[in-house]
Amino acid sequence: MFISFEGTEGVGKTTLIRRIYEAFVAQGRDVVLTREPGGTPMAESIRGLLLSVNHEEAMCHDTELLLMYAARAQHLAQVILPALDAGKIVLCDRFTDASFAYQCAGRGLSEDKLNLLNQNFVARMPDLTFWLDAPIELGMNRARERGALDRFEQEKVTFFEKVRGGYKTLWQLDPERVKRLDATQTPDQVFLDAQKLLMAV
Amino acid sequence: MFISFEGTEGVGKTTLIRRIYEAFVAQGRDVVLTREPGGTPMAESIRGLLLSVNHEEAMCHDTELLLMYAARAQHLAQVILPALDAGKIVLCDRFTDASFAYQCAGRGLSEDKLNLLNQNFVARMPDLTFWLDAPIELGMNRARERGALDRFEQEKVTFFEKVRGGYKTLWQLDPERVKRLDATQTPDQVFLDAQKLLMAV
Repeated sequence: MFISFEGTEGVGKTTLIRRIYEAFVAQGRDVVLTREPGGTPMAESIRGLLLSVNHEEAMCHDTELLLMYAARAQHLAQVILPALDAGKIVLCDRFTDASFAYQCAGRGLSEDKLNLLNQNFVARMPDLTFWLDAPIELGMNRARERGALDRFEQEKVTFFEKVRGGYKTLWQLDPERVKRLDATQTPDQVFLDAQKLLMAV
Repeated sequence: MFISFEGTEGVGKTTLIRRIYEAFVAQGRDVVLTREPGGTPMAESIRGLLLSVNHEEAMCHDTELLLMYAARAQHLAQVILPALDAGKIVLCDRFTDASFAYQCAGRGLSEDKLNLLNQNFVARMPDLTFWLDAPIELGMNRARERGALDRFEQEKVTFFEKVRGGYKTLWQLDPERVKRLDATQTPDQVFLDAQKLLMAV
């Protein structure tokens, strides 16, 4: 089973994914916890380029999208597909939905470009996706408390409103796969809601 | 005018491109000399990833292709298109033909993937392409004399034979744009041949 976790900054993805990981491990399941962009040494190097705020020039939107998919191709081939083939559960912090939300809804890149990349470079989609949804200001405050902001976290509220709208679109388009979690709740309640949804799969 | 220079390792691209650059400058023309992968600080960082032999894991073919196009998107937007818009001549050491020759013909990636990337992420193709053609062993000896080999230069002769075959295919498919230069000749003669072809454009 391949499960992805999505949402804007500071909505509690890391906390939830860790608790679900621990719950699966307690059940004796073989689980891989990974993240995007990144998840392999090479993909983490690409993540470094994507998140750095120390570039001499602005990163073009096409460049950002293609770097995301370069990292994803490596991550799929080296980590996700081998783990799934070995019968493991894969928990992934962000996946293709993040590209739709951030690059298409957020940056305004065409969905056609994204669809082409998904069709040609993504051999496997998640079976289940948790979308942690909360008002942008709430998450931004949490992200700021974590320290220095990366290139994405430095974006304005209006950008994240568009990203949140992108996730909402995906949830409405594919409610079977994409499950919305109310991330304004306590971490305990979010985890309980997620567990209920997992048991229904 | 946008002119690209293609060929396997050690065929004399750098020497030719410099001489053509100097000839245009001597004519008082505004010329930009650039290269791929690279050509901007960010694209050069991506080049670093692509050429490094110090990775902890093998780079997947899809990753390699997408990194090439990420660098290309940045290079096009930041350097090539603005220069062409300003009426400058752009001389580029490698462009999309290299992706066909190395990633498709060399690595065996599907041409469909490449065509999709070209159609969606490459706004401008070269007006003229010089393909410097020479037997692989000749170029390999020259490349070895230059010092430590990068990740591509470390490939075997059979790989470069396929790359050379890829260039030949492109030349046969589009002889109007792709011009073959006999790179077994002296650098002076190669330059003279290139000049003749340039004057005919």
